[in-house]
Amino acid sequence: MAELGTLVLLRHGQSTWNAENLFTGWVDVPLSELGQQEARKGGELLAESGLLPDVVHTSLLRRAISTANIALDVADRHWIPVRRDWRLNERHYGALQGKNKKQVRDEFGEEQFMLWRRSYDVPPPPIERGSEFSQDTDVRYGPEAPLTECLKDVVARLLPYWDSAIVPDLRAGKTVLVAAHGNSLRALVKHLDGISDDAIAGLNIPTGIPLRYDLDENLKPVNPGGTYLDPEAAAEAAAAVANQGR
Amino acid sequence: MAELGTLVLLRHGQSTWNAENLFTGWVDVPLSELGQQEARKGGELLAESGLLPDVVHTSLLRRAISTANIALDVADRHWIPVRRDWRLNERHYGALQGKNKKQVRDEFGEEQFMLWRRSYDVPPPPIERGSEFSQDTDVRYGPEAPLTECLKDVVARLLPYWDSAIVPDLRAGKTVLVAAHGNSLRALVKHLDGISDDAIAGLNIPTGIPLRYDLDENLKPVNPGGTYLDPEAAAEAAAAVANQGR
Repeated sequence: MAELGTLVLLRHGQSTWNAENLFTGWVDVPLSELGQQEARKGGELLAESGLLPDVVHTSLLRRAISTANIALDVADRHWIPVRRDWRLNERHYGALQGKNKKQVRDEFGEEQFMLWRRSYDVPPPPIERGSEFSQDTDVRYGPEAPLTECLKDVVARLLPYWDSAIVPDLRAGKTVLVAAHGNSLRALVKHLDGISDDAIAGLNIPTGIPLRYDLDENLKPVNPGGTYLDPEAAAEAAAAVANQGR
Repeated sequence: MAELGTLVLLRHGQSTWNAENLFTGWVDVPLSELGQQEARKGGELLAESGLLPDVVHTSLLRRAISTANIALDVADRHWIPVRRDWRLNERHYGALQGKNKKQVRDEFGEEQFMLWRRSYDVPPPPIERGSEFSQDTDVRYGPEAPLTECLKDVVARLLPYWDSAIVPDLRAGKTVLVAAHGNSLRALVKHLDGISDDAIAGLNIPTGIPLRYDLDENLKPVNPGGTYLDPEAAAEAAAAVANQGR
């Protein structure tokens, strides 16, 4: 059996709404200047490590698309084939989209706040159809767009794309870059590493640092948890992500 | 029969080597700051006209890819499917790649200079394999990369991609953006408008201004010559392009 290709996950860096501490979800905000720098750094790490993607998969959201464009340009791989799918989108944050994280925590309390942010199967309240930060009138999704999602929902809508679009590229021996979001990547890592519904709450994937997975023929990681291309920066960044909303 | 989609051609703007008046061809130089501005302007024209691409085709060269990325981001269409192919690349300029246009004109004379730049079937001398500005060791092409091309060669390698990749998107009713180069777009326009081998020498496509073609069911333009989204700027820019190398 042919050896599988290498999977490389890249979480987008700071967006303008991350900088303002707002729940973002499917709202299509751009990278901040810092987020663009993180993408360039991600591209440099790919180039330095010689881990050069043959194909890239992104969500339909600008902050992941720009991250891929910038990183691949820096790594001189701007010319590779591109696949995009809504199934790689960030978790839909429902009625929390557009709200300040600190205000939500102050209003609803620490317990409810953490339940919405980190529980596996409790979605935030649904967003109102046709409201400022809903996506049900966005041409790229149409009226079928979710009104809220928990992480379990993200796993359910992500896995069909993993199986049908990403795995075939890996089986073809390609180095596959997936440029996506905190929660769509947590959903994928949960599946790959067989993390329990409870334990996934504690997993934070740092931004801008490519995370390499080597998979065996059964698509199980040879290196469980993956390998960050810059382990020291990853450890620092993971601690910072855990403090979001404080 | 279903109505065909709309074809939109976009020639990349100024690259760093355009700014230095060097023959570029397949050398993968970036856009200059002016070229990035041109791409943004192209995106604004798409958005203002409501001509929103459903799919984009680019060459494998950074200046066309960046132009598409920037224009689509401005037009809020960064999320559409992407196709890339070397058959949309600029003409390979052979041994002239990396050389200053004025110096070439001074060394070889106006007649030879214009023959290489504008004749239909006279390619420049082939570039030396493995030399600084050749592409025969570039992983994206491999040893089959051309060593020089005339416009006739570009037509011959472009048309299979037009037929197999772009036409199916048009027949599916999509608005199709093709972000490419002076000579790959001249080759396509020659085919669409049935321009003679002699007359194509006089055609200059301005940079950064989307050119719309409405096609009938036989893929013949309903609007021969196409329609620029900014006709006044197109007329000014065409005159400027004609003076290149002066």
